[in-house]
Amino acid sequence: MLEVVVVGGDACGASAASSAKRALRDGAHVVVLERQQWTSYAACGIPYWMAGHVDGPEALVARSPQEHRDNGLDVRTGWEATEIDPQGRTVTAVELATGSEHELPFDHLVLATGATPIRPDLPGIDLPGVHGVQTLDDGLAILDSLADGVRRAAVVGAGYIGIEMAEALCQRGLTTTVVDLAPAPMSTLDPDMGALIAKAMAGMGIAYHGGAPVQALEAGQDGRVARVVTAEGSHDADVVILGLGVRPNAALAQAAGLPIGQRGGIRTDERMQVLGHERIWAGGDCVEVRDRVTGRDLHVALGTHANKHGRVIGTNIAGGDLVFPGVVGTAVSKLCELEVARVGLRESEARDLGFDVVAPRITASTRAHYFPGAGPIHVKVIAERGSGRMLGCQIVGQAGSGKRIDIAAAAIWNGMTVEEVTSMDLAYAPPFSPVWDPVQIAARKATGLV
Amino acid sequence: MLEVVVVGGDACGASAASSAKRALRDGAHVVVLERQQWTSYAACGIPYWMAGHVDGPEALVARSPQEHRDNGLDVRTGWEATEIDPQGRTVTAVELATGSEHELPFDHLVLATGATPIRPDLPGIDLPGVHGVQTLDDGLAILDSLADGVRRAAVVGAGYIGIEMAEALCQRGLTTTVVDLAPAPMSTLDPDMGALIAKAMAGMGIAYHGGAPVQALEAGQDGRVARVVTAEGSHDADVVILGLGVRPNAALAQAAGLPIGQRGGIRTDERMQVLGHERIWAGGDCVEVRDRVTGRDLHVALGTHANKHGRVIGTNIAGGDLVFPGVVGTAVSKLCELEVARVGLRESEARDLGFDVVAPRITASTRAHYFPGAGPIHVKVIAERGSGRMLGCQIVGQAGSGKRIDIAAAAIWNGMTVEEVTSMDLAYAPPFSPVWDPVQIAARKATGLV
Repeated sequence: MLEVVVVGGDACGASAASSAKRALRDGAHVVVLERQQWTSYAACGIPYWMAGHVDGPEALVARSPQEHRDNGLDVRTGWEATEIDPQGRTVTAVELATGSEHELPFDHLVLATGATPIRPDLPGIDLPGVHGVQTLDDGLAILDSLADGVRRAAVVGAGYIGIEMAEALCQRGLTTTVVDLAPAPMSTLDPDMGALIAKAMAGMGIAYHGGAPVQALEAGQDGRVARVVTAEGSHDADVVILGLGVRPNAALAQAAGLPIGQRGGIRTDERMQVLGHERIWAGGDCVEVRDRVTGRDLHVALGTHANKHGRVIGTNIAGGDLVFPGVVGTAVSKLCELEVARVGLRESEARDLGFDVVAPRITASTRAHYFPGAGPIHVKVIAERGSGRMLGCQIVGQAGSGKRIDIAAAAIWNGMTVEEVTSMDLAYAPPFSPVWDPVQIAARKATGLV
Repeated sequence: MLEVVVVGGDACGASAASSAKRALRDGAHVVVLERQQWTSYAACGIPYWMAGHVDGPEALVARSPQEHRDNGLDVRTGWEATEIDPQGRTVTAVELATGSEHELPFDHLVLATGATPIRPDLPGIDLPGVHGVQTLDDGLAILDSLADGVRRAAVVGAGYIGIEMAEALCQRGLTTTVVDLAPAPMSTLDPDMGALIAKAMAGMGIAYHGGAPVQALEAGQDGRVARVVTAEGSHDADVVILGLGVRPNAALAQAAGLPIGQRGGIRTDERMQVLGHERIWAGGDCVEVRDRVTGRDLHVALGTHANKHGRVIGTNIAGGDLVFPGVVGTAVSKLCELEVARVGLRESEARDLGFDVVAPRITASTRAHYFPGAGPIHVKVIAERGSGRMLGCQIVGQAGSGKRIDIAAAAIWNGMTVEEVTSMDLAYAPPFSPVWDPVQIAARKATGLV
């Protein structure tokens, strides 16, 4: 019987374990070691739970430890893996409740150790009331901090989590301030598109301070966080949310001598096998993935990739031959009614990488201009001059805007030119789109410039 | 100076004329002959005008004859082209108001003569109160028929226009019956998906009678239509809408000896040049287009294609070299809250064409299952066994379902397999999608079967 040990019971780990078990059945004993009490949960749902739109934490759990056990997995919550011996093929794990140590042999090891919110080395960063947003326990801790009398919140960083948490805190009735290093929110978009988001934040009453690096967090008399100090001034805050991105949890792998990439993630091949270690697999937020646009390795922490990694790993452990062919950097979010999405390279990033690009921006309508509910949609397309290849796309607009990024994602995935995107057969009817889809209007404008 | 004559001033014609004029400026005299008083109008908006959601007819006009004239086009409304001499390079046209005939020389001729609703040769088909839906004048005529005391409507045919008009008439408060030859509505979808639409129609109080070929339309005492008689029974109706599809207006081209395809449309090459006639171009609803899935020539009457044809033709007349690379049969519509979309081959159609296919159907959620507003979405994927190539996709579901067909359209356009679609980097966030996009859930299911 194959011994499969999976470290981490969230998206990638649970999915790898389930796929392997489903394929191998009684031919495998699949152990899942999970430090927390939760498995298969939707970390990306936490801001909506915080906002009160969604119940939590149970509703965010897609499959509980017991449900996984009912499917034949040996799930051990409250267990933490502390050491890997790649040659001896064992994992050492500790039961956190008792401190007792166990050595588990493996034929296949899956590392799905996730990521941790970045906590910059600042004075006061460990004060009570300062929270990252990654696990359901983080969510519970934030709710605890919000419990009584809290009126002012600050969010450090204006990426996806930062924006979503700012919206959530604002909707809970807190006076909310966002401080950010970058000049405009959502630095995964170009600043001209980010400016549209800044405007929407202002409309919601969220104070945005860009270009304001945080220097310290200061405590009040009760010893809890009370102020965020930036180079530009200081902002009172009874609770502080860190939205500065996440870092791969790769220490366990690194200590075992597994290869770590420049972005700090574990390095794997397309089959999600750790480079040079044919019995060890890794996926989810702890690995680096290949960017199909540039060939670079990136760290992209997203549940959708983690789930795909899990499927690939579980299937391959069971003798299959699946690959994860990389990413194109697709992401979507929203700030109340405003939908925000991006894919591929930003204009500035493309130039920095040596691409000669055109980057037109258009404003169109989400539906036929005469159709009720039509709203503005802004689309920016980045294309390589000469070849016309689409390199990036950014969308900010009203309902119906965000998922349109999938058109550009599919185009970039397939290496299409802006001329071919302009020609594509996309769904048209007045309630859904103008006669030229807004993404095609932007692509068409780019055809005139490349 | 180049003499450009364009026959037809709607989507393709006006767009071709505008593109050519914009590129050639004073180097071209561009005449647009349009039989009606309208140019550049959105025929696909007519059902929503009829429903009262949209003002009409002016609001459906994207650019009026005068606006086109202001842009330098010589637009002649109320002029009908009656004869083409390809060798002598002249078009004969009649001013309808006076009957006076003119001969116009051309260096380039554009045929954008559109299509006409199919009127089967049935007793009573020409009775007052029986309407096709194609032009703004049709819309005005329908409103006229609905003017006073009309309570019962019948729609013949349950394709896109049939469904949209049934919804519109129902929303106007009319008792609405749909009779259809096919067993389920929307025969561009497989019957199992069409059944979901039939259920929604029943929920709206629209009576649907499938498998009921119409035998005659009967008049009442006032000489207007009063009844639709089918093989299954007869249905009282004060107004009857024909939703049986459209037929290309190719008679003018055919009389001039231009090549006509098996579907009745004018045949062109990829540059939209009429085969064998380098000075004559054709596009929009009067031509056939290449299906990229099968290589067959199809007749697909859609404003989005017509506009693209116009851009290609206008640019090529001005010395450019654009192509229209074909279609994959993408379409979207809605019936109240239910969104319906399709692309590529149906299951039965694929089998008839000799493909060995798998065709799984899944039900998923439009958003993360825990996110407010998440609704059911049904996705069917048709894939070739062995190669795994995606051949078709159909979607029926709640808000946020329809435009997801663009994912499948892009996949089929690029010849992707269901495994690669499963791997694609699509936009994910809880308000927009479950962690696996529903199209990917269906594709993933297909991977297990191919």
